[in-house]
Amino acid sequence: MESFMDSTPKNENHHFGVNFATPRGFLTKLKLGVNEMFFPDDPFRHFKNNNEEKPLRRVLKGVQYFIPIFEWLPTYTWSLFCSDFLAGLAITSLAVPQGINYAKLACLPPIIGLYSSFVPPILYAIFGSSRHMAVGTVASSSIIIYQTISTVAKPEDDPTLYLHLVFTITFVAGAFQACLGILRLGILVDFVSNSTITGFVGGAAVMLCLQQLKGIFGLKHFVTKTDVLTVLKGIWTYRNEIRWETTILGVIFIVFLQFTKYVRKRNSRFFWVSAIGPMTTVIVGSVFTYLVNGKKHGIQTVGHLDKGINPLSIKDINFETKYLPSVLKAGIVIGIMSLADGIAVGRSLSIVENTPYDGNKEMVAFGLMNICGSFTSCYATTGPFSKTAVSYNAGCKTAMTNIVQAFLMALILQYLAPLFGYTPLVALSAIIVSAVLGLINYTQAIHLFKVDKFDFIICMAAFLGVVFVAMDFGLMLSLGLGLVRAMLYVARPKTCKLGKLADVGLYRDVEHYNASTFQGVLIVKLGSPINFANSNYVRERIMRYVRSEEDSNGDIVEHIILDLSGVTSIDTTAIEGLLETKKIFEKNDIQMSFVNPRLEVLEKLILSKFVGMIGEESFFLTLDDAVRASQILLGKAKTNCTDGAVQEINHV
Amino acid sequence: MESFMDSTPKNENHHFGVNFATPRGFLTKLKLGVNEMFFPDDPFRHFKNNNEEKPLRRVLKGVQYFIPIFEWLPTYTWSLFCSDFLAGLAITSLAVPQGINYAKLACLPPIIGLYSSFVPPILYAIFGSSRHMAVGTVASSSIIIYQTISTVAKPEDDPTLYLHLVFTITFVAGAFQACLGILRLGILVDFVSNSTITGFVGGAAVMLCLQQLKGIFGLKHFVTKTDVLTVLKGIWTYRNEIRWETTILGVIFIVFLQFTKYVRKRNSRFFWVSAIGPMTTVIVGSVFTYLVNGKKHGIQTVGHLDKGINPLSIKDINFETKYLPSVLKAGIVIGIMSLADGIAVGRSLSIVENTPYDGNKEMVAFGLMNICGSFTSCYATTGPFSKTAVSYNAGCKTAMTNIVQAFLMALILQYLAPLFGYTPLVALSAIIVSAVLGLINYTQAIHLFKVDKFDFIICMAAFLGVVFVAMDFGLMLSLGLGLVRAMLYVARPKTCKLGKLADVGLYRDVEHYNASTFQGVLIVKLGSPINFANSNYVRERIMRYVRSEEDSNGDIVEHIILDLSGVTSIDTTAIEGLLETKKIFEKNDIQMSFVNPRLEVLEKLILSKFVGMIGEESFFLTLDDAVRASQILLGKAKTNCTDGAVQEINHV
Repeated sequence: MESFMDSTPKNENHHFGVNFATPRGFLTKLKLGVNEMFFPDDPFRHFKNNNEEKPLRRVLKGVQYFIPIFEWLPTYTWSLFCSDFLAGLAITSLAVPQGINYAKLACLPPIIGLYSSFVPPILYAIFGSSRHMAVGTVASSSIIIYQTISTVAKPEDDPTLYLHLVFTITFVAGAFQACLGILRLGILVDFVSNSTITGFVGGAAVMLCLQQLKGIFGLKHFVTKTDVLTVLKGIWTYRNEIRWETTILGVIFIVFLQFTKYVRKRNSRFFWVSAIGPMTTVIVGSVFTYLVNGKKHGIQTVGHLDKGINPLSIKDINFETKYLPSVLKAGIVIGIMSLADGIAVGRSLSIVENTPYDGNKEMVAFGLMNICGSFTSCYATTGPFSKTAVSYNAGCKTAMTNIVQAFLMALILQYLAPLFGYTPLVALSAIIVSAVLGLINYTQAIHLFKVDKFDFIICMAAFLGVVFVAMDFGLMLSLGLGLVRAMLYVARPKTCKLGKLADVGLYRDVEHYNASTFQGVLIVKLGSPINFANSNYVRERIMRYVRSEEDSNGDIVEHIILDLSGVTSIDTTAIEGLLETKKIFEKNDIQMSFVNPRLEVLEKLILSKFVGMIGEESFFLTLDDAVRASQILLGKAKTNCTDGAVQEINHV
Repeated sequence: MESFMDSTPKNENHHFGVNFATPRGFLTKLKLGVNEMFFPDDPFRHFKNNNEEKPLRRVLKGVQYFIPIFEWLPTYTWSLFCSDFLAGLAITSLAVPQGINYAKLACLPPIIGLYSSFVPPILYAIFGSSRHMAVGTVASSSIIIYQTISTVAKPEDDPTLYLHLVFTITFVAGAFQACLGILRLGILVDFVSNSTITGFVGGAAVMLCLQQLKGIFGLKHFVTKTDVLTVLKGIWTYRNEIRWETTILGVIFIVFLQFTKYVRKRNSRFFWVSAIGPMTTVIVGSVFTYLVNGKKHGIQTVGHLDKGINPLSIKDINFETKYLPSVLKAGIVIGIMSLADGIAVGRSLSIVENTPYDGNKEMVAFGLMNICGSFTSCYATTGPFSKTAVSYNAGCKTAMTNIVQAFLMALILQYLAPLFGYTPLVALSAIIVSAVLGLINYTQAIHLFKVDKFDFIICMAAFLGVVFVAMDFGLMLSLGLGLVRAMLYVARPKTCKLGKLADVGLYRDVEHYNASTFQGVLIVKLGSPINFANSNYVRERIMRYVRSEEDSNGDIVEHIILDLSGVTSIDTTAIEGLLETKKIFEKNDIQMSFVNPRLEVLEKLILSKFVGMIGEESFFLTLDDAVRASQILLGKAKTNCTDGAVQEINHV
């Protein structure tokens, strides 16, 4: 019953007070809290308010909710399939060299990389919520697997054991991801900030390029550590093994691949040029190596590849206690990282295309992908940025693309696999270098530097940590700094002194706006949750406002008004802190009042008897009310503003 | 130039906009940030704005600032000394049995406990900022020392090594405390919440009482672990050693001591009754044991005590790598805990008495106390609650009380020490039990349960952890839960939907007040820092408001207004999140505007080009402006409020 024009208080003397209604019950608050914590996206909204619906229809809705393929398959059309088929073709042509590649990175038999593009995509197509994600292996997980497991089981010494441990890691990662999804703990992934990802991916890219120097130089020996100093030293040590033939071939391939990217960048219609680039490199490289008899010139090839689709590997899962700590560590790290990667990729496309997306469902889908993958000779998969981008550019419309990919990959495995055994390693190295060069996002780093120095430090910690020490070190350092930063914001919440803006009649930060203050009255706006970590600070800060008031303009503060509207929560330590502050001010004859506490805060203040001790008359709904009351209390008939002008108040 | 009555906007069409002044420079912000982080209490305020002062006077002020004794000594009077002397007498009579006691707890020679009440009090009197703190050893540190060191060096096997390691721990704790003070890292102590302290102290008290059963039952053997199950099992194992003589004596002493406390509680003029209670117990107990030839009845005594004041122990500090990890761990834990204890005690008295107090100076004073203490055969000291309370009740006025205590203790050490060797252990046990019984603050635990369930859980985690596992486990568990809680508040900041209150013309939470909303316009108030940890959540939450709006009253949201006045800071991840949100809404034809961003937030929004991309016209200073703009934009001539009434807007 109100238009926004009625903003003038109708009766200046009417004191419209704070609503001290009875606090809500504990169970109500608990339910609300749990909902906000674990169900911020309200996943069951489709089932609510529809009690008149038929049971069968509700069951169908439930199935559609948990298994997204039933949502889009019933309305699937031939024209959609044509788009999806083309996109599937594009990603398969990328999947073969990428699969072999990343498997090599993880020191696995190359065929495992191909297997990993068969089973997981089918599962994602069924359970995944994103329409555009293309599933496959990624470089970062591959290299983490190698780094973690090679410390307990060298792939050269016992390749079978190593392979089995990799399946186990994949299983652990999948189980962990599925648990996170079922327990709705997407909150953990939230703690990985964009700055961390930027720095981490950049660092990993540099590290990957360094690793590829082995393939490009045609070295037979290489170091196992990944930091830049060790790698450069290693290359210097083995400098006599460098073959000029592979080096030239590698440089040519990289230039070619970079050129295909340049073409796509110039004209997005030529997306397919860069999409078939890797496959072209592999085919040209294989034919060339075969023709010149590459072995004689030191050009190493992938080697023998068996025909046939994925053999079962469920019996190979190995939970021996000797390897368990490393396996669990790697599994959880890979689980979290591939989730963070995959979810970021999927979400950005769902935003651009306005298609459905659900982080918790993605977790379950990723989890099932990796669990089933580990039973069928696949290793850790996620939604790689490169593949997804190719798929999206190729016009992918639904998750059917992944089924096409799986089908084509099955055909390749069944009939063409041995041919790829002739692929020269240098071609694979060139493909990786070209792929990861684009991941070094220095413009984002510059942006961070300009906007937020701390974010830049978090980013550089990840980058330098990965490049100079190790991947997990960089990641942990960066995450730790992020947490420290978040805690510092908790420990030092921003406060500001308010003054009144004559033009709009509202109170604003005096530092930001030229707002007038009132003589003898100090208005402080508190912000953020007030709790044990900042209760001391808040007290000191208020004291300092009082002192600086007296120091700067000799104005003795007689009344302090705390604007609580920005305080989102409070705990018992903070309430005790406020009582202490109140006591200190009482000793100094300073009155204190509180304006507009929010619901949650007011409830706690009532429960802790704070309101009872202070008195309801010290709580005001608006700053105007509080200022007026303070001035009446101080018996002042005049107000003196910062600019020195004095004006009578008409109603006193 | 304004009275608070001028709150009505003079010209409704005047758009008083957001101040987009150039962002402040990086160095300005850095300086401000460092000041808030490390100097929230503005310690150098005395030296500012006084450039006309003479250099000598400024040096004097500096000395007074860093060495507080120079602040109060020049104005010290005879009458002040009389009060201080009486208080000193009271705490010395407590210091002797307490010192012997706690030294026994730490498995140290009893004389070390007496030494510890000589040197440290002098140092505190010089450097400490509190007027009422009384210095001495505490039970919790003593028991932690025993627990940590007995795992690497049993006191029974090599008492000298054990003693030296204890001095080293004291040195480490002191160095750590002094560093914290000099680096102004009082912020670390802030993370220990009152709930943690309540639970921890209660748990430690229960554990201490259990430990005293050894003395009261007169047992010769006892278990080394401290958890309740092990201790009870131990007593059952050694039940044949229980002596009825000591048990009866112990019960009598405890009843006597509790009675003296009761007397003080009934009438605070009889504070001295409870103050001399422990000394009386010791004297009566010693005389009685001597007369009845206690040894024959199984009453064990303290044993031989040497005459003479503290020998030097600087050469005994032992940094052997074998013991270093345990020593560092114990030193840092004790350093933090005794700071948290001591600072809480000192601050509460300074608030009651309105006397100066400075947490960072206290850290330096505590640090010097322990460093110098470790060089002169003392072990870890702090400001114990029991002693300080006695001192304050006895009329202590300045830190001179500590000098009196030190002087009297020196006399005792020089002449009377051997007499205290006859003290029966059961008397000491009774004194400890009686002292710590008062520390179990169950009323506070009930208060926590009523006000804040999570605080109660934090408190009980500390209590149960200490009682059933170990001290450090309980402490760490409780601190960890506190951090998790703080992080959850960061990850799930409270938001609320705003409506307009007709009576005051201001916008308030619709859940808390009966405020009217506008058709097609959704106003959401964000709160707390928005950063990487909650950027996803905030987006989901806003989406949910839009959906629930449409579900509940079929109102299609066409305009979203975000009230940023409660957002205290923002990082780059969150800015990208806001851009994403904006994009999603654009796809759905929903306009978005922002109201009253704070200075720090606006600076980042400008730097990150967010304002440039969104357009300055989407930023408003007041909610009224934003609502008006949204309605003009939507081409609405009518507003429809929640109660269904319709009213013409006069100016459209």
